[in-house]
Amino acid sequence: MEYEKLLASRTKLMEANAIREILKVVSKPGVISLAGGIPSPQSFPMDIINEIVQKVLKNYSSSAFQYDLTEGFMPLREQLSLLLKTRNIKSSPESINVTSGSQGVLDSIAKLLISKGDKIALEAPSYLGAISAFNPYEPEYIRMDMDDKGLIPQSLELALINHKIKFIYLVPTFQNPTGRTLSIERRKKIAELIIRHNALLIEDDPYSALRYQGEDIPPLKTFAPDNVIYISTLSKIFAPGLRIGFYAAPDFLSKWLVLTKQGVDLHTSTFNQALAAEYLKGGYLENHLPKIKALYKPRRQAMINAMEKYFPDNFTYSRSDGGMFLWVQGPQDFDMIDLYKKSVDNGVAFVPGKFFFTDKTEGINTMRLNYTMADEATIDYAVKKIAQSISQCD
Amino acid sequence: MEYEKLLASRTKLMEANAIREILKVVSKPGVISLAGGIPSPQSFPMDIINEIVQKVLKNYSSSAFQYDLTEGFMPLREQLSLLLKTRNIKSSPESINVTSGSQGVLDSIAKLLISKGDKIALEAPSYLGAISAFNPYEPEYIRMDMDDKGLIPQSLELALINHKIKFIYLVPTFQNPTGRTLSIERRKKIAELIIRHNALLIEDDPYSALRYQGEDIPPLKTFAPDNVIYISTLSKIFAPGLRIGFYAAPDFLSKWLVLTKQGVDLHTSTFNQALAAEYLKGGYLENHLPKIKALYKPRRQAMINAMEKYFPDNFTYSRSDGGMFLWVQGPQDFDMIDLYKKSVDNGVAFVPGKFFFTDKTEGINTMRLNYTMADEATIDYAVKKIAQSISQCD
Repeated sequence: MEYEKLLASRTKLMEANAIREILKVVSKPGVISLAGGIPSPQSFPMDIINEIVQKVLKNYSSSAFQYDLTEGFMPLREQLSLLLKTRNIKSSPESINVTSGSQGVLDSIAKLLISKGDKIALEAPSYLGAISAFNPYEPEYIRMDMDDKGLIPQSLELALINHKIKFIYLVPTFQNPTGRTLSIERRKKIAELIIRHNALLIEDDPYSALRYQGEDIPPLKTFAPDNVIYISTLSKIFAPGLRIGFYAAPDFLSKWLVLTKQGVDLHTSTFNQALAAEYLKGGYLENHLPKIKALYKPRRQAMINAMEKYFPDNFTYSRSDGGMFLWVQGPQDFDMIDLYKKSVDNGVAFVPGKFFFTDKTEGINTMRLNYTMADEATIDYAVKKIAQSISQCD
Repeated sequence: MEYEKLLASRTKLMEANAIREILKVVSKPGVISLAGGIPSPQSFPMDIINEIVQKVLKNYSSSAFQYDLTEGFMPLREQLSLLLKTRNIKSSPESINVTSGSQGVLDSIAKLLISKGDKIALEAPSYLGAISAFNPYEPEYIRMDMDDKGLIPQSLELALINHKIKFIYLVPTFQNPTGRTLSIERRKKIAELIIRHNALLIEDDPYSALRYQGEDIPPLKTFAPDNVIYISTLSKIFAPGLRIGFYAAPDFLSKWLVLTKQGVDLHTSTFNQALAAEYLKGGYLENHLPKIKALYKPRRQAMINAMEKYFPDNFTYSRSDGGMFLWVQGPQDFDMIDLYKKSVDNGVAFVPGKFFFTDKTEGINTMRLNYTMADEATIDYAVKKIAQSISQCD
């Protein structure tokens, strides 16, 4: 059979996730990876998992293993409502829906909203997982500028004036890939803009709970509740393998997103949702989150210290108070792909930043470094090795 | 905001699952439901779940909670390869992929293959979940005839001659909604046809393990391996709330289906896949499956007996040796929607069969009865009550 002929036209936009392809190199034995975008397994609450499982079996018994509502397992939605309250978002349990990771809601949003050629406004660079959720629906991307304080509001305003934007997609706090956080002043300004332009904004917030210093900044959703779909996940504060994402959206969109998800996977694992409910309910998260932060905070500091120590002065990085990444910029025209190849040969991997830009000419001199997967000594050693590779690049 | 304006054009085909809407009525207190399409919670291996959890924690530890391959958790794929061998399907672990329920692969197939207006050949009636996975991609449906031996091959042949068919979708064994099974002679004939016409066929097989009498019939996949994507699930033989589906497809399509799934949910819950791996590996399925069959077999018999006893002679039903459903046909023009309303008033729900047809004029005199969720005495009572409602319908 000639299978190629069967593919739908949309598949031309579906490329293998470049990062995953790059990570294949990383699995070479002996290579230290600062390329990952995943939490450390040491951050998982393994010591209490069994206790949580026993509570689930006792409290929910067979109902934790049965089909459940597409909207989500109600005891979890109740807990998520309380969690969002701590982030200043007022959402009833009924208006919070659970998805199979935050990827699940990105897919549903794309399926529900994007017609071919619709314009999506993205900050440059952007989160790759979102782009891979949007691509199959054949949108056009409108890029917006960002700096160390996140998206530049004037750039959003220009996009809204010059284009019919279907929605804006942002990771406003500790962004992947840059680690940057949108300042509160800009959040207010952006809220004002989207309200004035009747624009919908997707606020993807996987990282805000991982703040190592500085003060919490309220989500964009709090400044423009009717214009924002707020997305978050338990992947970084519980366990990613359980695939628990969630969102709070305006009611009309929620109803449709649930209908969309029904055709995709019926519902998210009941058992895993029950585990998450007990994790939140039992005060486990409250006790465990400080341990996760205590694990990552010195790793971040070790990376900053090592860059200060080893990197040339014309290499700069974004200040970031939390999350999982630091973003490095080399001198203009410095080719990070070239550095990447040298660096992997020298035993250290990272992600060249150009992969995070929809404009293929951008970001050639940037890289993303992850600090959650390696300990402080390894980070120091790895950054030193990268610096050595940099010195081979003239 | 005017949210309606944001919806993509494809949403006009996304309707609420009619069955789920109907089931809302069912949750009225005191109503006995033969309307469900779900396994009995008594069929879940609750007595061994904790043992399986302990094995997972011991054998996989934190890796059961980490991100994993989109393709699926390798220890599970190894077990699924052995399971498929018992169904005469030879697939290496590498060529079996795991999805979030079988709904997950139906969604990926639709997303990968269906361009607007593409023709999908469906037996009439068909499984609703598949239709709700396909609809958002705006296909056209070509209906094919079936009888008590399943799809009529001549009808498929006509479809293949008269139309450019993107793929054929069948549930050949203990079909939902009819309970019908495609005979071996027809399987061979259909395999011949799809090979001759270079056609792709989706074989959805959630039920074949639930055979209460008669001999196993080899999957269609065994007769035309290159032309068939074989889909199955652990929902009916382990627990549906874990959302574990899987498929064996030609390599080219597998590669693309994995890429598609990557944008949808990254991967299926690692923890649940690990539970499934241990369930299959530890011989638990082997020990537990006879118990599930021993639970359902007398329920099926009770339903057949009750229909023989109470239903008028001009009501006939499909013989079915397994699965979860029996399919009833009333006299021509008998309105099952009318009966449904009376029957719910009288305290018993079922699903009027017309919802399973893409041609809205078909199936008005049919109904689907489920026998997995009620015990024998309840089934006898419920069928008697339906018969009483029938007598009120003249």
